[in-house]
Amino acid sequence: MRPSGRQLDQMRSISIETGVMRHAEGSCLIKMGDTHVLCSATIEDKAPSFLKNTGLGWVTAEYGMLPRATNSRTRREAAVGKQGGRTQEIQRLIGRSLRAGVDRSALGERQIVVDCDVLQADGGTRCASITGGWVALRLAINRLLKAGTITSDPIIDHVAAVSCGVYAGQPLLDLDYPEDSVAGTDGNFVMTGRGRLIEVQMSAEGASFSREEMLQLLDLAEIGSGLLVSAQKAAVE
Amino acid sequence: MRPSGRQLDQMRSISIETGVMRHAEGSCLIKMGDTHVLCSATIEDKAPSFLKNTGLGWVTAEYGMLPRATNSRTRREAAVGKQGGRTQEIQRLIGRSLRAGVDRSALGERQIVVDCDVLQADGGTRCASITGGWVALRLAINRLLKAGTITSDPIIDHVAAVSCGVYAGQPLLDLDYPEDSVAGTDGNFVMTGRGRLIEVQMSAEGASFSREEMLQLLDLAEIGSGLLVSAQKAAVE
Amino acid sequence: MRPSGRQLDQMRSISIETGVMRHAEGSCLIKMGDTHVLCSATIEDKAPSFLKNTGLGWVTAEYGMLPRATNSRTRREAAVGKQGGRTQEIQRLIGRSLRAGVDRSALGERQIVVDCDVLQADGGTRCASITGGWVALRLAINRLLKAGTITSDPIIDHVAAVSCGVYAGQPLLDLDYPEDSVAGTDGNFVMTGRGRLIEVQMSAEGASFSREEMLQLLDLAEIGSGLLVSAQKAAVE
Amino acid sequence: MRPSGRQLDQMRSISIETGVMRHAEGSCLIKMGDTHVLCSATIEDKAPSFLKNTGLGWVTAEYGMLPRATNSRTRREAAVGKQGGRTQEIQRLIGRSLRAGVDRSALGERQIVVDCDVLQADGGTRCASITGGWVALRLAINRLLKAGTITSDPIIDHVAAVSCGVYAGQPLLDLDYPEDSVAGTDGNFVMTGRGRLIEVQMSAEGASFSREEMLQLLDLAEIGSGLLVSAQKAAVE
Amino acid sequence: MRPSGRQLDQMRSISIETGVMRHAEGSCLIKMGDTHVLCSATIEDKAPSFLKNTGLGWVTAEYGMLPRATNSRTRREAAVGKQGGRTQEIQRLIGRSLRAGVDRSALGERQIVVDCDVLQADGGTRCASITGGWVALRLAINRLLKAGTITSDPIIDHVAAVSCGVYAGQPLLDLDYPEDSVAGTDGNFVMTGRGRLIEVQMSAEGASFSREEMLQLLDLAEIGSGLLVSAQKAAVE
Amino acid sequence: MRPSGRQLDQMRSISIETGVMRHAEGSCLIKMGDTHVLCSATIEDKAPSFLKNTGLGWVTAEYGMLPRATNSRTRREAAVGKQGGRTQEIQRLIGRSLRAGVDRSALGERQIVVDCDVLQADGGTRCASITGGWVALRLAINRLLKAGTITSDPIIDHVAAVSCGVYAGQPLLDLDYPEDSVAGTDGNFVMTGRGRLIEVQMSAEGASFSREEMLQLLDLAEIGSGLLVSAQKAAVE
Repeated sequence: MRPSGRQLDQMRSISIETGVMRHAEGSCLIKMGDTHVLCSATIEDKAPSFLKNTGLGWVTAEYGMLPRATNSRTRREAAVGKQGGRTQEIQRLIGRSLRAGVDRSALGERQIVVDCDVLQADGGTRCASITGGWVALRLAINRLLKAGTITSDPIIDHVAAVSCGVYAGQPLLDLDYPEDSVAGTDGNFVMTGRGRLIEVQMSAEGASFSREEMLQLLDLAEIGSGLLVSAQKAAVE
Repeated sequence: MRPSGRQLDQMRSISIETGVMRHAEGSCLIKMGDTHVLCSATIEDKAPSFLKNTGLGWVTAEYGMLPRATNSRTRREAAVGKQGGRTQEIQRLIGRSLRAGVDRSALGERQIVVDCDVLQADGGTRCASITGGWVALRLAINRLLKAGTITSDPIIDHVAAVSCGVYAGQPLLDLDYPEDSVAGTDGNFVMTGRGRLIEVQMSAEGASFSREEMLQLLDLAEIGSGLLVSAQKAAVE
Repeated sequence: MRPSGRQLDQMRSISIETGVMRHAEGSCLIKMGDTHVLCSATIEDKAPSFLKNTGLGWVTAEYGMLPRATNSRTRREAAVGKQGGRTQEIQRLIGRSLRAGVDRSALGERQIVVDCDVLQADGGTRCASITGGWVALRLAINRLLKAGTITSDPIIDHVAAVSCGVYAGQPLLDLDYPEDSVAGTDGNFVMTGRGRLIEVQMSAEGASFSREEMLQLLDLAEIGSGLLVSAQKAAVE
Repeated sequence: MRPSGRQLDQMRSISIETGVMRHAEGSCLIKMGDTHVLCSATIEDKAPSFLKNTGLGWVTAEYGMLPRATNSRTRREAAVGKQGGRTQEIQRLIGRSLRAGVDRSALGERQIVVDCDVLQADGGTRCASITGGWVALRLAINRLLKAGTITSDPIIDHVAAVSCGVYAGQPLLDLDYPEDSVAGTDGNFVMTGRGRLIEVQMSAEGASFSREEMLQLLDLAEIGSGLLVSAQKAAVE
Repeated sequence: MRPSGRQLDQMRSISIETGVMRHAEGSCLIKMGDTHVLCSATIEDKAPSFLKNTGLGWVTAEYGMLPRATNSRTRREAAVGKQGGRTQEIQRLIGRSLRAGVDRSALGERQIVVDCDVLQADGGTRCASITGGWVALRLAINRLLKAGTITSDPIIDHVAAVSCGVYAGQPLLDLDYPEDSVAGTDGNFVMTGRGRLIEVQMSAEGASFSREEMLQLLDLAEIGSGLLVSAQKAAVE
Repeated sequence: MRPSGRQLDQMRSISIETGVMRHAEGSCLIKMGDTHVLCSATIEDKAPSFLKNTGLGWVTAEYGMLPRATNSRTRREAAVGKQGGRTQEIQRLIGRSLRAGVDRSALGERQIVVDCDVLQADGGTRCASITGGWVALRLAINRLLKAGTITSDPIIDHVAAVSCGVYAGQPLLDLDYPEDSVAGTDGNFVMTGRGRLIEVQMSAEGASFSREEMLQLLDLAEIGSGLLVSAQKAAVE
C-alpha cells in the first residue's frame, strides 16, 4: 500500500549511535532507515555579540549534505560559493527547534553549535537532524554539568521531529523519499518529550488541505514523536 | 489590551492599490496598517529549464526590504553580497504559496516572477507579500487572457495569508511588529478563497504550544483570510 | 519635436512628498515625471573609522532599483550577489554630491546614510536621487538641530541635479528615457542653490562634442537646477 | 609654487614604449612621470551576445592596480573577492572613451578587450590608461588591417585624456598625486585628436566651482591633450 | 619514542569498508587510525567541455572536511562562501593522482567525480583520500565494465598515498596529527601498485632537508604504499 | 633537441633588476627568458593575530597574473570574484618557501607581504616568483636593518627555485612553456644557498616516474639553483 510497504502509522527503524566523533563535545550518528545524519555539538566559550552582558546563552545549528548523499550528485555548496535557500531554511529550523528546549539562562553566556551533516538521504533529513542534534546537544551539556562549568541543567525537555504526509488520500507517518516526492501535502512536526508542539510546518504542493487532514497528521506525529523520544532516552543513557 | 489597541480578532486596515508600476504586467501596493509592500508580476516567455517540454509553467517570487523599511537601518543585501537566510526562506514561501493557486498546465510554458519589496515594515511582511503578490499575479494573468495568449484561466483560487500569535495567553489576529516581537508562539497561515489551507507555519520561540492553541489561531486565521480575499476581489475588479 | 512633446528647456513635472517612511529620520518620495525615487536618511552615531578623532562627520549614499522599475525586468542585485558597476558609480556620485553641500565639521563625528531606491524609472534616476536625497538629508539634520544634538547647521547650500543632452542637434533639458537612449551626448550637472557647480559629467556615446555644446547644456542645467531648488524649498517647509 | 615645481600648464614627462607584451595583439607601457600603466589589447573573434547579428563590434576595458603600486599597500581585489566601486567606475570610463573613437561597424562583429594595469601610481592613472589604452588598441587594429581581416580602418580619431585641477586658486595641468590629493576641484578631460570632447568629469570635493573655473581647466586640457596625441603618434609609427 | 608509540616504519591500522553509500556508483569509508574519510565516485555521462570530441574521459576530485572533524571547530566552507586554499590544493592533488592511474581513452568521454569528505581528522587526510578515492573509483569503473558500457578496463594500476616525515632526526612513516604538527620536514608520496612514483611533495617548515633525508622518507613510503595497495586489493574483491 | 634549442642542463638567461617600484620597501623585476615577474615586499608593523605575543614575525606572499601575460587572455581573477585553485596553491608555496629562509624570531612581530605579479608568462612563473620574491624580501629587510628597527639579520640563507622535467626520456633544466606543456614528469625544486632542499614538488601527468628519474632532476636543480643564487647575490649588492 505504501511504497515502503510500511503500515500507515509505522516509523522506519531508528538507530542512534553516540560518541562517534572523538573531537566533538557531543555527537551521534542517527539513522532513520536509509537517512543517515552525523550530528555534533561544539561548545564555544563566547555567546554571539548580541547577547553580551545578558547572561543568556545561544544554541545554533548548521546543516550540510554530502554531494553524493542523494540519488544524483548535488553540487557542493562550498564550491558553488554559498549555502542554498533550502539549506538556510533547514538550519534555521534546527536551531530554533533546539533553542525551544533549552533554558538559555541556565546555559550562561556561551554558545553551542550543532552541526548536522547528511551522509545519506532518503527523506526526512531535517527531522532526523533535529532529533539527532538534540542528542549531541544533550551529551555536550552533560559534559558541562560534569565539569561543574554550569550547575543547573539547561535542558528543559526532549526535542524530536517527524514528517507526515497525505499520500493517495491516506495520512502516512515518517515519509521516505519516494513517499515524500509524491505526497500532495506534507508537514514537519517538532515536539517536546511531553507532547507539546514547538514547530509545525505544513505545505501543499499544488493542492490544498483541510483542518481535518491537519489533525490527522498531527495524530500520527504524536505517535512518531513518542518513539523518537524513547530512542533518544536509550541513546543518552 | 493588545499593544495596538485592536480587538483580539481585529485586522489592521487593508488597502490594495493596483497599477502602481507602469512597466509591470501586474502590480499593486498593499498596505496592512503600517506594513507597505510593493508587488509586481513579470511575465517571461520561457519557463525554467527543468520544465522544458512539459507544457507546464512556473511561478516564482523574490522578496526584498528597503534598508530603512525597519526601525533601525538594515544592511542592503546587494551590498552585503548575498540574500540572507530569512529572505530566502520568505521568498520560497511566497513562490510555493502562489503556485498552489495556479494550474500550471493552463499557464503553459512560461514563467511569472512576482517581486515583493517591502517599503515599510511593521510585522507581517511575508503575509502581505503573499496577499499582494496574488493580486499582481491575477492582473498579469488577466493580461495574458485578454491578449489571447492563453485561453483558459490558470488561477484556481485566491491565495491570501495572515499571521496570528499567542500574546499574554490570548490568541491574536494579524500581529504588528510590537505584538510579534513578544508573542511566545506565532504562525503564518496561507489559505485559499474557499478556506482551505495551503501552508501552515507555527513556531514557539523559547516555549511550546498545545493542539488547542493551534486550533484557536487557525480559527482567527480563517476570519482574517476571508477579509483579505474580499479586499483582493475589490482590488482586481 | 522632443519625443516627450516638451519644450527644449522644459522640465518634467516635479513632486516631492516628505515624511513617507515612518522609521527614517528624513525621507521623501521624489517624482520627476515617471521617474519615482524613494529617499531616506539614517543618522548613525558613529562616523566611519577613518574619521576617528577628527571631529568630522560623513555623508554617504546607497542606490538601488527595484527589479521591475524598468521596462524589462532587471535581475535583483542581492540575488546576483553584487552591486553592478553602474550602481556603484551612481551611489558614489550621490554621496560625493551631497557631501559637497555639508560642513562636515558642524555635523560632528556621526554618519548620515542616504538610501535612494528607484521604484519606477524613466531616465534621470541619479539626478532625482541627488535632488531627493538632499531633501531627506535636510530633514534628518533638522531633527538633529531640533534635538540640540548639534547646534550649528551643517547644511551649506541646496544640492540638486539635472540631466541635459543633445538630441537631433538640439540641446534638451531633463531627458526622459526615450530621449536619453538616443541622445548622442548627455550630461549630469550637480549644482548648488547659489548656482555654482559641484559635479559635471558629460559623455558622448559614439560621438564627440564641442565646447559650445557643453556651454549650451550648462545653460539649460542652470534653468533646471533653479526649479529643482524651488521644489526642495517648498518641500522642506 | 606647484608641489611638483612644474609650471601651471606643464605636463609631466611622457613616455610610451610599445610591443612590451609579446603575447598581446597590441601593447604599451605608458609613463606619465611616476605613473606607469601597462596596457594590452586582445582581439576576440566574438562580439558580446547583445550585438549578435548587428554587424557591430565592441571595445571594452578592464583596469587593475598592483597591490604595491601605491604608497601603502592596497588589498588585492582578487583576494577581496570583488572589484571595488572605483575600479569599476574607471574601467567603464576607459571603455566608453575608447569606443567613442571607433567605428564599430568597420570593426565588425568582434571584441577588443583593453587591459590597463597600473604598475606604479602617482595620480592620473585613469587618464594614462585611456591614453595608453588607445595606443594598444591602435596596434591591435593595425594587425587586423595588415592581415586583411578588416579592410577599412575603424579608428576614427586619437583619444587621449588628462586631468586638471584647481590648487590654491590656480588652475593646474596634469595633477600628480600630491597635487590631486589637495585640489579642491579636479576634472578629467577625454579628447579627440581634433580637439573635440568625449568625456568631461569634474568634481568638487567639499567645495564648488564656477563656469569660469571650468573653462580655465578646459583650456589647460586642450594643451595637454595636444601633447599626448603627439606622443601617441610618435609611439605608433 | 614516537608520540604514537608506533615503530618508525609502522603504519596505523588500515580499514576500508566498501559500499557504504547506497546512491554512489562506488564508495568506501577508509580509516587510517583516527583519520576517517568517506569517499564516493559518481559517473557522469558527459566529459568536461574541453574534452569534447577527443574521445578522452576525465577524473576529478572534490575534498571537504566536516566542521568538527578537527579538534577545534573549523568554519564550514559553504558558510564562509568559498573553498580555502588548502582545500583547493588538496582536491587538485587527489584528482591529478587518480588521473595518473587511468587510461582516459579507455574510459571514453565521461567524467568520474570522486568526493572525499573527512568525517574525522588525525593527520594524513589527503593521503587517505587518495587511497580511498582509488577504491571508490575502482568500484564505479567495475560497474561500467559489468554493464558493458565500456569494454576495456581504464584502470592502469593501483594508486595509493602515504605521508612520511622527519621527527627528532628520525624518519617516520604515516604521521598522525601530533607527529605531523612537530615534524620539521614532511612529505606526501603517491605511488602506483608497481612501486613507481606519481607525485612527491616534500616541505620543510622553518628548516631544510638533504638529499639523504629525502631518500630515507622515500624508502619508508615504499613500505607504506605496499601495505595500502594490499588493503585496496582486499577491499575491492 | 630541446624545443628551445638549449642544452639539457642550460638555464634561460637570468635578469634581476632591483628598485623598480618606488613605493615598495623592496622590489625587483625578474626575467627568466620570456617569463617576467614583478616582485615587491611590503613591511607591515603588525604580525597576523595568531602570532600575537609570540615575538615571532611572518612572511606571506600573494601571486597574480595579468590577463594577457599568457598566450590567450585569461579572465581577471578580480572580475571572476575569486582566486583560482592554481593561484592559491602557488602563493602558498611562495610564502612557505620564503619563510623557510627566515628566522622569524629575529624578524620580530611584524609581517612582510611579498607580491609576485606575472607581467609575461613562458613557464616557470612560480619558480621565478620565489627567486625574485627572495630579492624583494632581502631588500626590505636591509631597510629594517639600516633603520635599526631590527638588529640581527633574520635572513638565514638564500632561497631560489627552478623547475626540471623529463622530456622525450631526457631530463631538462628550467622548462619554458612549450617544454613544460609536453613534459610527462616535472618538478619544482626550492633550495637554499647552501644547496639544501626546502620544497620538492614532482608530478607525473598521465604517467609515473622512478626514483632514478627523481634523482636526475634533482642533480639538474642543483646546477640551476647555484646560478640563481649567484644572480641574487649580484642583484642585491
